[in-house]
Amino acid sequence: MYPKVLQQLIEKFRYLPGVGEKTAERYALRILDLNEDQVQSFAQALLRIKSDLHECPICGNFTENEVCDICANKERDTHTICVVQEAKDILAIEKTGQFHGVYHVLKGAISTQKGILPQDLNIASLLDRIKEDTQEIIIATNPTLEGETTAMYVARILENKGVTLTRLAHGLPMGGHLDYTDELTLQKAFENRIKV
Amino acid sequence: MYPKVLQQLIEKFRYLPGVGEKTAERYALRILDLNEDQVQSFAQALLRIKSDLHECPICGNFTENEVCDICANKERDTHTICVVQEAKDILAIEKTGQFHGVYHVLKGAISTQKGILPQDLNIASLLDRIKEDTQEIIIATNPTLEGETTAMYVARILENKGVTLTRLAHGLPMGGHLDYTDELTLQKAFENRIKV
Repeated sequence: MYPKVLQQLIEKFRYLPGVGEKTAERYALRILDLNEDQVQSFAQALLRIKSDLHECPICGNFTENEVCDICANKERDTHTICVVQEAKDILAIEKTGQFHGVYHVLKGAISTQKGILPQDLNIASLLDRIKEDTQEIIIATNPTLEGETTAMYVARILENKGVTLTRLAHGLPMGGHLDYTDELTLQKAFENRIKV
Repeated sequence: MYPKVLQQLIEKFRYLPGVGEKTAERYALRILDLNEDQVQSFAQALLRIKSDLHECPICGNFTENEVCDICANKERDTHTICVVQEAKDILAIEKTGQFHGVYHVLKGAISTQKGILPQDLNIASLLDRIKEDTQEIIIATNPTLEGETTAMYVARILENKGVTLTRLAHGLPMGGHLDYTDELTLQKAFENRIKV
């Protein structure tokens, strides 16, 4: 019923997270209201994601330059490496402004279900990065089955390398409500309770 | 903090209705997960909206062909013309399956605030379309101040043309927009249309 080109655009919008048929329709109809330049620049911005962004050869973060902004920044503390599953996790951590070290992207997590094995992840390159002056490795994988499995695997590999190994704390999310918190999180929050 | 190309894409997603900073971020990050082909086809679908769609010279609907599917359809009842503000309103009405006549797109509504005058709308071309065999004109402008004003103006212009003038019933929620209305409400509005 929609012209074919409109139907195709609706399908593309369904790629986006949480976007169903109705929302995709609204988005596509909004595109009709945009002028030629706006649509052109939208399409260009999409294409540039693939043409201009690539992986940092050191940490695996995405970058427009040879090396990513974090690896290129001389002020960052290279003695502390934070290990994450995906490059986008770096953005989330950077937003906190808490961490001043460098990162290492595993590019996934061990998953028997998806057939992802340790050798499929960037673990060898992490080992290569550990030098005499490396002090701490913070394992910041997701608090999921895959993330936990990966964290345990990485921890075992790094056991005797003479670096401090840490994991992000599990507990109640800030601003959350105790009665809405799932049992496992509450259990973790109890286990990891700290002295006031 | 985000690479520049990512920041630019986030800004583009903010064009979409109801999309704030946080949602735009999530959308842009999802694009990073898509493969080259998926991003290419997304960008192409956007560009095609402007390159392949144009206005039907008869009714103002958007079409990929010389004349729109509705005007080209010999089964449609050309004795009944439904007057809408925007081409996208046609899509909403077609979804109800209630209407078998043809359309006429005004391309806007009279608005003193936005400085849109009757002569800025496709009203002259509507008059040209009224022939001896035209039986009914259904005015289906939005139930807003501008839409009501436009409806009243169009009704006055068509007063002595010997056609039955009707308006969609106020089953439509006031202050709403036709293209966001659910199918059932729109269907009811068609059933209960009243003589002007």
